[in-house]
Order: sequence, then structure tokens, then C-alpha cells
Amino acid sequence: MPSNQQVLINSLPSGKLQASDYRLADAPMPVPGDDEVLIETSAFAITAGTRAGLQGSASYAGAPKAGIVMNATGVGRILESNAAGFNPGDTVQAPTGWQTHCTAKAAAVSKIPPQDDPIAWLGPLGINGLTAYFGLLDIGRPVSGDTVMVSAAAGSVGHMVGQIATLKGARTVGIASSNTKLHTLTAQLGFAAGVNYREDDYREALKAATPKGVDVYFDNTGGPILGSALFRMNVGGRIACCGVVSQYDTDRPEPGPKGVPGLLVNKRIRMQGFLVFDFAKRYEEARADIRKWLNSGEMIMLTDTILGLEAAPDAFVDLLAGGNVGTRVVQIKPHPAGVV
Amino acid sequence: MPSNQQVLINSLPSGKLQASDYRLADAPMPVPGDDEVLIETSAFAITAGTRAGLQGSASYAGAPKAGIVMNATGVGRILESNAAGFNPGDTVQAPTGWQTHCTAKAAAVSKIPPQDDPIAWLGPLGINGLTAYFGLLDIGRPVSGDTVMVSAAAGSVGHMVGQIATLKGARTVGIASSNTKLHTLTAQLGFAAGVNYREDDYREALKAATPKGVDVYFDNTGGPILGSALFRMNVGGRIACCGVVSQYDTDRPEPGPKGVPGLLVNKRIRMQGFLVFDFAKRYEEARADIRKWLNSGEMIMLTDTILGLEAAPDAFVDLLAGGNVGTRVVQIKPHPAGVV
Repeated sequence: MPSNQQVLINSLPSGKLQASDYRLADAPMPVPGDDEVLIETSAFAITAGTRAGLQGSASYAGAPKAGIVMNATGVGRILESNAAGFNPGDTVQAPTGWQTHCTAKAAAVSKIPPQDDPIAWLGPLGINGLTAYFGLLDIGRPVSGDTVMVSAAAGSVGHMVGQIATLKGARTVGIASSNTKLHTLTAQLGFAAGVNYREDDYREALKAATPKGVDVYFDNTGGPILGSALFRMNVGGRIACCGVVSQYDTDRPEPGPKGVPGLLVNKRIRMQGFLVFDFAKRYEEARADIRKWLNSGEMIMLTDTILGLEAAPDAFVDLLAGGNVGTRVVQIKPHPAGVV
Repeated sequence: MPSNQQVLINSLPSGKLQASDYRLADAPMPVPGDDEVLIETSAFAITAGTRAGLQGSASYAGAPKAGIVMNATGVGRILESNAAGFNPGDTVQAPTGWQTHCTAKAAAVSKIPPQDDPIAWLGPLGINGLTAYFGLLDIGRPVSGDTVMVSAAAGSVGHMVGQIATLKGARTVGIASSNTKLHTLTAQLGFAAGVNYREDDYREALKAATPKGVDVYFDNTGGPILGSALFRMNVGGRIACCGVVSQYDTDRPEPGPKGVPGLLVNKRIRMQGFLVFDFAKRYEEARADIRKWLNSGEMIMLTDTILGLEAAPDAFVDLLAGGNVGTRVVQIKPHPAGVV
């Protein structure tokens, strides 16, 4: 009998996440209930935000615990359907988790139109792309000529934030952890400048890269990079708070930056957190724009593919150390349509 | 010859402000230049925000230095005018500083209408009242039924924030440093509840006082009270960042609260700094509302009067330690109209 191969949380991490916090397992093939579908996963995304969930109750991702399948958004093919509107063979996006098969309620499943690359639903057309779109345009609200700074700029969300900012007429400055990443951003993705936060002269380099200050800061990291941004913000600046990756891979989060709230007052800064799910009613509006940009070449899809379910734990540990450029995708099996 | 009695900054404070950081001085009577008026000060306000200026460059208040007159907004009577629209005998509000006489450019001087109590122009109709009005209504944006929390709630701005929130239909919770202050807020000014942040059980008491969480937090303090508010904020909450009094009376500001930016993301909180001067074009609109509330008794003017210019340094040190209830006013001499 075919089985469902899974990666389970072996233990909630103490300190930095390690691959040994996960373990492989075989489970019986799941059976879809009423209004559910059975999905064969072809790929899933690994994103830093899921690390927050492993810290427990403070995260929007809920509180994973030892013994359950690690959560992830994936794409795949429907094998069986008990849900109206879904049929075997449909390509879908769903909360697959790190496993070869899953069942899901119809409400949690999105049908992927035939003209879309399914992998794009883990990147620009998926949660990462929608997060970049709404966080930048609705929370950050850049106008043409603004300087937009983005941290974790080579990451799943950041590399799309920078591209959207650039195509909206902003001057985009990316912060990342290596010069190789920065080269990709500036040479291929339209960023005006990049700054390596691991260099000793980071603060001076940031100042040089933002001669007119910063109007919009898209914050994926929190911590010291947020602190450095506060000092570069212009009067009336906006900070879109998207994630806190600098504080995820630890059980001892640092205090907040010194400039809060003093610099917010002096510079009349708006600092606003958001979750993409609050924009769910407008996803299709965003996808229409993003498809247009992908088709015109104004936005480039950058995927960092890892092969094999069993590679997921190492791929996650490496991502938290800054190892990825673009959307990190674990590919389990080629998509039947041959696209993936 | 009559002289101008002044309080000068003797030395910029290191650590906590002390009265000995100031000294009394006699100066020649100032002579108004073109487009200037000579004003005899009757009273001025002492506000925590001016302490920030003594920390140097990071403040909107500029950078005072040893040897100059301490800055303050005051009210008084014009003795001489070289400015169109101003005449001797006019009652005005102006940046008088801590001195019996000053000259000021016409643009910095506001004529006080005869029907207004001049002291109200240091409180509800002055910068403090306008700060409460715009910060609460434009930045915090409470709606009827919201819970509004305000820190330094018995202070110059806080006691008006609470009153405006209450008359807009919010449930208002004030944070202050003594039970006597809290009694004034709840028994006289319409606050629904008060919490003493100096008590050991502060966090539990705050939780009990905000059973439905906090929708709007008007932050006058920053520091640990801001931290406590972040944990009580509801999803979609707004924090109006007005001042950072917890960090003014020191040369070693603390780091920011732990919840920034993590809790901002999870709860989709908007945290926004503001300065009242950005609303200058709308001051008369606000004053019309505030006059109406004062006349109807919906807003109570609470003044904490200290007599004599020479008492200003001690009055400021005491204010920074939490000694005032309402707007602290130093009265130099009775107003000629007998109102003050």
C-alpha cells in the first residue's frame, strides 16, 4: 500500500533550530472526509515566518508541537475529491505541510489556473508575493521618487518588494547578508543599491546608499536593522512591519530598537504591522497585477529549489542562516504537467 | 531702569535634571525690532517635552545650551509693537521662555480673544490641548465603544486626552504615578478607570482595567508602560506616539519595548508619531471644538499653578518626577485683566 511520507516536528527547538528537531516518518495514506480533497504534493515553500510558530503562542502561525507535520504552503495535484468544484487532476495550492500527501478542506484550497506556473503560486502569485504587494503598496505606500529600503531583500518576500517598489518608480535599497545576494538584487532585479549588514561599516554604507534618507522601510527582520532604518527615515516616513526574522531563530528575543518611540515622534513616522490574510478579499486584484508584471518581464520570479522531502529540515536551517536567494522551494516530485 | 528677570540654563543636565542646572539672571529690557513685539509675561507652562531638548540634537525642540533662557510657551501683554495687527495692551500667547519680558516675531505670536481665559491658552486652547486633540482624534482615531488607554494621564496632555476620548464615547483608562492623581481622573474628569504604574501589581491591574483589551493607546511615556500597552492592544489597534517622558530625564535612554515589531505584526497595530505643529492649519477648528466643550462643562480645565519665576526650576524637576496634576503653570504676575 502506498504510504504518506512526512517530516514531523521531533521537538520544539531550544535556541537555534537544528535539522535534528525534525524526523522523517511514514503514515497511512490519508482519507478525505466531507468537503475535503486528497492532494499529492509536488512542492512546498519554506519561509522564515514558520520559524516564529515554533516559538509558541506569540505567533500568528499558531503553536506547532512535537509529533505533528511541519506546516507549509504547497502546490500539488488532487487525487480524490469530496468537495464541490474540485476534481481529480486539478492543480491546487493548499496548506500541504512537509509531506507527500495531505487532505484539506475545500475552503483552504485554491485552484491554480492552467496558464499559471504552479511554482509561481509559492512565489509571486502565492502568499509571499501577496505579502510583498499589500505590505508595500497598502502599508508602505511609496510614491514615485521615494527611497524604499527593504531588509532580507533577497528573501522570499524581500526580493519581490524591491521589484514592485522599483516598478512603481521608487529608488530601492536592499539589505542582505552577502555581497553575492546583493549582486543578484542590483544586477538582475532592478535594485538601485544594496548594503551588506554583516560588514563592519554597515551603518556608513547604509547612509551612503540612502543619500536622500528613507521614505518607506519594509521590515522583514526587526532587531538592529530596524534600528538602523529608524535613523535613516525621513519625516513622514512609513515602516511596514512584515516579519521579525532576526528574532525567530532564538528563544531569547532582544529588546526593541532604541528609537521607539522617540524617533517615531520626532520624525512623525508611521510604523504599522500587517498580515496578508487581512487582504484576502483583494488577492485576485493583486494577482492580476503580478501576472501582468511577470508576463511583461517587469517582475522576475526567482526560485531557490531544493530537491527531496528529506532535504527540508536542512533547507530550513540554512534559510534561517540566510542561505536562500529568492523563494526557497522544496520539490518532492516533478509536476505531472511537466512544468515543475 | 526696569530689567528683564530670567532663568538661564546654567549647564545641560547630566543624568537627572536638578534645579542647580538653572540660574537666575537680570538682563537689560529687550528692544523689539522690525515686525516684533515686546511682551510682559504673566505666566508660562512647564511641560515634560522641553526636557527632551536638553538631551541635545535628537529632539524636535532643538538643542538648548548653557547660558540661554529656558524655553517655554507663555501668555502675557504687549508693551510695545512694531508689528502690524498687534497693539500695546493686547493679550497674547508667545514663546516667552522663562523670563518676565521678551521680544518675539509677529509670526510666533497669537492674539488671545477677549472671551478666552488667557491661562486656557497654556492648557486646553494651547499647545497641550491641541496636542491631545489632534493626537487622539487624527492619529489614534477612537470610535464609540473603544477602550482608550493614556499614559501620564494626569499630565498636561494626558488629562485632556482622556476627557476628549470620554466625550467621544470611548471607555478611558488612565495610567499615572499615584492613587491621588487617579482619583482626580476618575472622580472629576470622567475616566472610567485608572492604574498606578508604580504598584507591584501594575500589569495585573492594567489587565483588569482593560477587560476588552485596548483599541487606542495614547503614549506620553514610551518605556515599560508602552511595553505593557503592546500586550493589551487589540488586533487593529492604534498607538499615537506623543512623547517619551520615561526617557527624558536621563542621559541613557533605555532600549525600546520587546514587542516591537513582533506584536505590531501579529496584531496589525499602527504606531504613529506626530508633532502638533504639523496640524497648525487646523488649530482654529480644534479650538472651536475645545471652547464648546469648556463652555458646556464637558471638558474641565485643570491647572496646577506655581507662583514666581524663581520657582520654575524646582517646578520642572518636580514635574519630571510626576508631581503635577493637570497643566503646570508658573505665574509671574497677575494678569492686568484680573483673569489670571
